[in-house]
Amino acid sequence: MQYPEPIAKLIDSYMKLPGIGGKTATRLAFYTIDMDGDDVTEFAKSLVAAKRDLHFCSICGNITEDDPCVICKDKSRDQGTVLVVEEAKDVMAMEKIKEYRGLYHVLHGVLSPVDGKGPEDINIASLLKRLQQNDAIKEVIIATNATPEGEATAMYISRLVKPAGIKVTRLAHGLSVGSDIQYADEMTLFKAVEGRQEM
Amino acid sequence: MQYPEPIAKLIDSYMKLPGIGGKTATRLAFYTIDMDGDDVTEFAKSLVAAKRDLHFCSICGNITEDDPCVICKDKSRDQGTVLVVEEAKDVMAMEKIKEYRGLYHVLHGVLSPVDGKGPEDINIASLLKRLQQNDAIKEVIIATNATPEGEATAMYISRLVKPAGIKVTRLAHGLSVGSDIQYADEMTLFKAVEGRQEM
Repeated sequence: MQYPEPIAKLIDSYMKLPGIGGKTATRLAFYTIDMDGDDVTEFAKSLVAAKRDLHFCSICGNITEDDPCVICKDKSRDQGTVLVVEEAKDVMAMEKIKEYRGLYHVLHGVLSPVDGKGPEDINIASLLKRLQQNDAIKEVIIATNATPEGEATAMYISRLVKPAGIKVTRLAHGLSVGSDIQYADEMTLFKAVEGRQEM
Repeated sequence: MQYPEPIAKLIDSYMKLPGIGGKTATRLAFYTIDMDGDDVTEFAKSLVAAKRDLHFCSICGNITEDDPCVICKDKSRDQGTVLVVEEAKDVMAMEKIKEYRGLYHVLHGVLSPVDGKGPEDINIASLLKRLQQNDAIKEVIIATNATPEGEATAMYISRLVKPAGIKVTRLAHGLSVGSDIQYADEMTLFKAVEGRQEM
């Protein structure tokens, strides 16, 4: 016996989401049937709306409803600094700390030769164009993740940007706040020693 | 800075699903934006369709598009046996082994005084009515889960059904196939010894 078609289709749809396999998809599908009807309708609407109404900002590549995005439009922000991140989610994470008041540039990926991802596959060209057209930018802060691909991408961008006389910095790597030295991995400890600061 | 409204709404919707917290919901929402447009539309449609087109079978309580469900309608199945399960998912699990050819009854829950769930909150009355109206049913197999609530529900149903002269059986409990005795929990080992069979 097969699942009734509507539920089989819903299971298939849930399985297209990352990290959701057959068992979880089945659980979610059955849960959906027991959900409040309005919640399900709302869910369906927000799926379609998110896909339809959200675009990438033509300047920084961040996810936005309007183009340019609220950050690029906000002239009260420091126009001299651009923080380069891998994903739009990273912009939100940075904004949460309310410390950084400059602009952003979202790469939408990292250089990864293994996955066939070269410089033309991520938002690097638009970053360079932005730097060329805008003399106000004095510093590029590279905030790619602390993975081999993130490091390689940081290095690549740094080599392209530095000759133009723009300061290039990278977020500090070291021990997370609240972490134990004994549980830190070797690379993190190495970076923490390397980046030690005078007290 | 807040997330753009369409994505904030989508995150809220994802968070209504069981086992999905804020971080996973955010990841899924951003993933949705990168998904193929047709897949998203399909997803939204299947959500609405599953909620709209699926009902509970008026006889057995299984999830179905048509009423009665394909199992209740199938006269080639053994009309003398009813297997009682907690959830519609359990019917699918039983059907997969292709061994059981009788009918089902879905309780939609178990007796759980802690959660305020009494006999009137689950599908027990309809089971009794079904047994009264249908002389063909000779055996009721209780396949509630091996949890305290499942056991209590099994006991409760057994006491109601037995006086009517209907055979009541319970699925065997013991070691899972392929499991190690050393890793089995005490209750399972106890059940395995208690239910030992002659070779």
